Amino acid sequence: MDDCIFCKIGAGEIPAATLYEDDHTLAFLDIAPAVKGHALVIPKVHCESLHDADPATLQHCLVTAQKVAAALRAWGADGVNLLQNNGAAAGQAVFHLHFHIFPRYEGDGRAWGWKGTPYPAGEMARVQRDIAAHLA
Amino acid sequence: MDDCIFCKIGAGEIPAATLYEDDHTLAFLDIAPAVKGHALVIPKVHCESLHDADPATLQHCLVTAQKVAAALRAWGADGVNLLQNNGAAAGQAVFHLHFHIFPRYEGDGRAWGWKGTPYPAGEMARVQRDIAAHLA
Repeated sequence: MDDCIFCKIGAGEIPAATLYEDDHTLAFLDIAPAVKGHALVIPKVHCESLHDADPATLQHCLVTAQKVAAALRAWGADGVNLLQNNGAAAGQAVFHLHFHIFPRYEGDGRAWGWKGTPYPAGEMARVQRDIAAHLA
Repeated sequence: MDDCIFCKIGAGEIPAATLYEDDHTLAFLDIAPAVKGHALVIPKVHCESLHDADPATLQHCLVTAQKVAAALRAWGADGVNLLQNNGAAAGQAVFHLHFHIFPRYEGDGRAWGWKGTPYPAGEMARVQRDIAAHLA
């Protein structure tokens, strides 16, 4: 993709603060981190999101994410969040598949703020049926 | 794992609002959803988190997440977030690997609230060096 910034970073045409690289993936620091050490993992091959990624690409990205997550813990993080956004409505800003990895610390106060609430009676079964219809 | 609720759900010993199942994974509705349609994907084999999952398990989970994400979009979502928490400090509550999938909608106001801020001068290179040292 000629105009894709993450393709250019993956190809080494645009510099990044690289943490790890192999044949299929690159991990680097986000330049506007939500937290110090906020990392991104991208495949070198272009795909837009989770939706159009092939299984091998997903595996390569997750194995690299695993390495980065371990490094963040070795660096001092108490935990790690993996976040991946699909579509502008979900906060995706660069349309090349990428996984965010956030170091977390005991008592860091970074709750997601998305409180879980049980479904009203009967609604869970309806939602299950309606979504599962698209998975048949 | 005798005392693992997600092992029991994966084995069909505890009921769940299943969306999709195959030999390696199960997708089902979270009983306390952050948003209607909030789904979970788990491997049937026990692993605690991203850290101890084998590559095949990661691939199986992501391919199932891809199917669920597509179904959520077919169901009406404009976008989808994939979130995976590792360790209590990161909000992990059940210590069996699981991926959250959240349907998202244009203008739903569900920003993460984690504002990105560039590093002070010189700090990105230090952070890069310190984390990359654990990836060598």
